[in-house]
Amino acid sequence: MADYKYFEDFVVGQKRVSGTLTVSAAEIMEFATKYDPQPMHTDPEAAAAITGGLIASGWHTASLTMRLLIAGTDYQPAPGALGLGFEHLRWPKPVRPGDSLQLTVEVIALRPSESRPDRGIITNRFLTVNQHGETVQEMVSSAIIPRRETKG
Amino acid sequence: MADYKYFEDFVVGQKRVSGTLTVSAAEIMEFATKYDPQPMHTDPEAAAAITGGLIASGWHTASLTMRLLIAGTDYQPAPGALGLGFEHLRWPKPVRPGDSLQLTVEVIALRPSESRPDRGIITNRFLTVNQHGETVQEMVSSAIIPRRETKG
Repeated sequence: MADYKYFEDFVVGQKRVSGTLTVSAAEIMEFATKYDPQPMHTDPEAAAAITGGLIASGWHTASLTMRLLIAGTDYQPAPGALGLGFEHLRWPKPVRPGDSLQLTVEVIALRPSESRPDRGIITNRFLTVNQHGETVQEMVSSAIIPRRETKG
Repeated sequence: MADYKYFEDFVVGQKRVSGTLTVSAAEIMEFATKYDPQPMHTDPEAAAAITGGLIASGWHTASLTMRLLIAGTDYQPAPGALGLGFEHLRWPKPVRPGDSLQLTVEVIALRPSESRPDRGIITNRFLTVNQHGETVQEMVSSAIIPRRETKG
């Protein structure tokens, strides 16, 4: 049985750190060709002049962050958990070929749902850093998450 | 020469509507296998029980929205334009196989930069809808954009 996480399993200040993941130039260009076809993401020569070399699409960075969350942490929300969307998505530094990314998820708020006693709201900060410790993505997200005790 | 867009080329309330783009089950599963490997995105049978069938990763929806912006509108920001990040990213309805997506970009605010007379700040709402007119993604984003007149 999966070791699901419920509202009661989280504490404000708690941090989970993912494994790492290295990004190649080929993957940066492949993603961008499909989803963000701009020269700084798809053409190393043009990118050299624009951004000092190829940089990943911000949406690629976001997608890689999701992969770190799913595959690189013990992320296992209980059935019924539901993302409410994201706030303050930022890409302070670009991701470049060869960069190694790591995600830290920090619980920054927890509150019981006012309308549903069997649920709570969790707010997390997602911080993605490169091998130099520089932040390449930051975002804040809230989700509805089931409570373990639902009697009553 | 590219027909670049400068601060002066935008007006609050102005809307640009993209072409459309249809999403296949194969693409939903391919994206999710790489970036968001959860059964509702990768396994049609498991997804039938969880979400009434396969649904796209929200990050796939975001990436497809970027593609609609770049390839489906006359998006051509002047050199020097720089995204400041996103606020209020929401996925009110999931994207399903066969859905046809369209993006509307609406200018909701424009203001000159206080520190840099050669720049302005533009705030856009990005609304992605399916073929039923249902919103599958909404977000608000601000960007720095060069002004056409930079003398002085």
